Amino acid sequence: MKPVLITLGDACGIGPEIVAKTWVRESACPQRCCVVGDAGVMARAVMLSQETRHLKVRALTSLAQWRPCASDELQVWQTGAPAPQWPYGQVHAGAGRLAGEAVLAATRAALNGQARGVVTAPLHKEALHAAGAPYDRYPGHTELLQDEAARHAGVPLEQMPVRMMLANPQLRTVLVTIHMSLRKALDAITTASVLETLRITHEALSPILGHSPRMAVAGVNPHAGEGGLFGDEEQTVLMPAIAQARSEGLLATGPYAPDTVFMRARDTEQHPGEFDVVLAMYHDQGLIPVKYLGVEQGVNVTLGLPLIRTSPDHGTAFDIAGRGVADPSSLQQALRMAMQMADARDAAV
Amino acid sequence: MKPVLITLGDACGIGPEIVAKTWVRESACPQRCCVVGDAGVMARAVMLSQETRHLKVRALTSLAQWRPCASDELQVWQTGAPAPQWPYGQVHAGAGRLAGEAVLAATRAALNGQARGVVTAPLHKEALHAAGAPYDRYPGHTELLQDEAARHAGVPLEQMPVRMMLANPQLRTVLVTIHMSLRKALDAITTASVLETLRITHEALSPILGHSPRMAVAGVNPHAGEGGLFGDEEQTVLMPAIAQARSEGLLATGPYAPDTVFMRARDTEQHPGEFDVVLAMYHDQGLIPVKYLGVEQGVNVTLGLPLIRTSPDHGTAFDIAGRGVADPSSLQQALRMAMQMADARDAAV
Repeated sequence: MKPVLITLGDACGIGPEIVAKTWVRESACPQRCCVVGDAGVMARAVMLSQETRHLKVRALTSLAQWRPCASDELQVWQTGAPAPQWPYGQVHAGAGRLAGEAVLAATRAALNGQARGVVTAPLHKEALHAAGAPYDRYPGHTELLQDEAARHAGVPLEQMPVRMMLANPQLRTVLVTIHMSLRKALDAITTASVLETLRITHEALSPILGHSPRMAVAGVNPHAGEGGLFGDEEQTVLMPAIAQARSEGLLATGPYAPDTVFMRARDTEQHPGEFDVVLAMYHDQGLIPVKYLGVEQGVNVTLGLPLIRTSPDHGTAFDIAGRGVADPSSLQQALRMAMQMADARDAAV
Repeated sequence: MKPVLITLGDACGIGPEIVAKTWVRESACPQRCCVVGDAGVMARAVMLSQETRHLKVRALTSLAQWRPCASDELQVWQTGAPAPQWPYGQVHAGAGRLAGEAVLAATRAALNGQARGVVTAPLHKEALHAAGAPYDRYPGHTELLQDEAARHAGVPLEQMPVRMMLANPQLRTVLVTIHMSLRKALDAITTASVLETLRITHEALSPILGHSPRMAVAGVNPHAGEGGLFGDEEQTVLMPAIAQARSEGLLATGPYAPDTVFMRARDTEQHPGEFDVVLAMYHDQGLIPVKYLGVEQGVNVTLGLPLIRTSPDHGTAFDIAGRGVADPSSLQQALRMAMQMADARDAAV
């Protein structure tokens, strides 16, 4: 069996530390996973915490060398020259480049069938930007993955649309727009992009849920435009997309008032969610509610790609990097979700 | 003692019903409150539920007639001709007009010192719009109150800035912009408007908290602009406002990433809030987190006015109007908050 890959993230952040902790806490890791990045960075990270200090870090120069290993070993696919010891908590172009290289290598391996999926620890977007070409073209992980997947498939980028899903045990949300200013996001919310999001979400969630997902479309404006008084994107952009999706048999409804649709979708024992997923029009519309109760359980899933990719729902946390106090829960959840999705896919084949 | 006024809201929605339930459940009401609107509408509303059916609705033609009354009486200050029985659950210009008239009358009474404060049940913005002049000028309650307060003070509208605070037991948020399209909101977020919001919030919350409020300013863009990669409003608009506020001695910090600042401010036993209040840049940024855990406990407080005004954190709920099943919890909370603020003000005088 091929491994699930875990990229180390920005070496100056908490990424390597939570990867090491996840390796210890998720007992499937030594048997089923491989870290991607730099062995020296990981060797430094395992020393941050009592619970990971016993790990022997072993470098692989090629993913073909990977084998299930003992529980006190941590295998790292070394994607470049050994990295220097950058200080924790600072933006560093070198760390940005290493993080980018690891994601690129892992993505290509997954696309080529050498890995079952990719789980990415947090990178720092400014460091990635500082790393220069080709990484400065990518605002984040998702765009890099998309670009590689399009290249692999030999199609233009436009034919490899992806969407980001944020999920925790109570709420799932898929974002129509992500890493751009709010002004630009408003221009990027089109009937085509909303319809595409509905189709991608339907396609991706149907197998996971075992039924067609009930998809709620959030409005753009306060009170979903209040009948046109506070903006008309609901009528001119969203309603045509929803109508088209419904004509294709998708369970799409809305647009709903943004301030209550997430509350309505929230699934708890006392209050079963009214929807399986909410389409958020812009980054913070979806991420504020997903993160509100804490980021520990949040997972980011990239939908639409020909590979499985999940990641934790938080950043590099430079403020606590290098102290051994980082919480790996979200990365653990991301890893579990990736393995579950890979198992479901393998079972379906 | 003067009464706290409760306006009945849109007669086709749940307003009159939750006013009647609040009157019964909050034992202080008959002694300390007066409903404002139409006695016939209230007489119909008390019949919707077993718990309110015993109430005798008594019309006052002038607020000067108000006296503390028996617990089985409900006093209504009749602000116009008796209203017809509009069907529940529909936008009706007449109901919009009655709702507007009640708010106008209550506001003027509070400004003139004939009442201690105003609690407003939900009106329907489309109905208010349909009611015609002068009500169609106001997107909602707040703008009407502001206009009246400015007129009363004899100052131009610009000199009567108000802000909406949404509060529940875990989170307070004050909105820099409210009822406008998101596109217009982006233009309305200026250094001056953010600074004004900080000053108003400081002024209003200091007496309630008993200390200077710790105010967090949320960013406009994803990740608060990620160092300028995703928009520059943080640098060009927000930072100058925060710097100026700090130079005036206010406890303002930020701008913070919008997707986590509300989580960080959330105050629970396990996680004391890092801030006393979050400044939200636009309607849904603040209202999504405040409403996420349910609207039952949410209260809307208008800051900056020379009168006390609170309201529940939900709308007219046309879908359940007339059925007797509406939950008055939020209106009860709003009433308690108004009475508490009025008591604090009277004690300070």
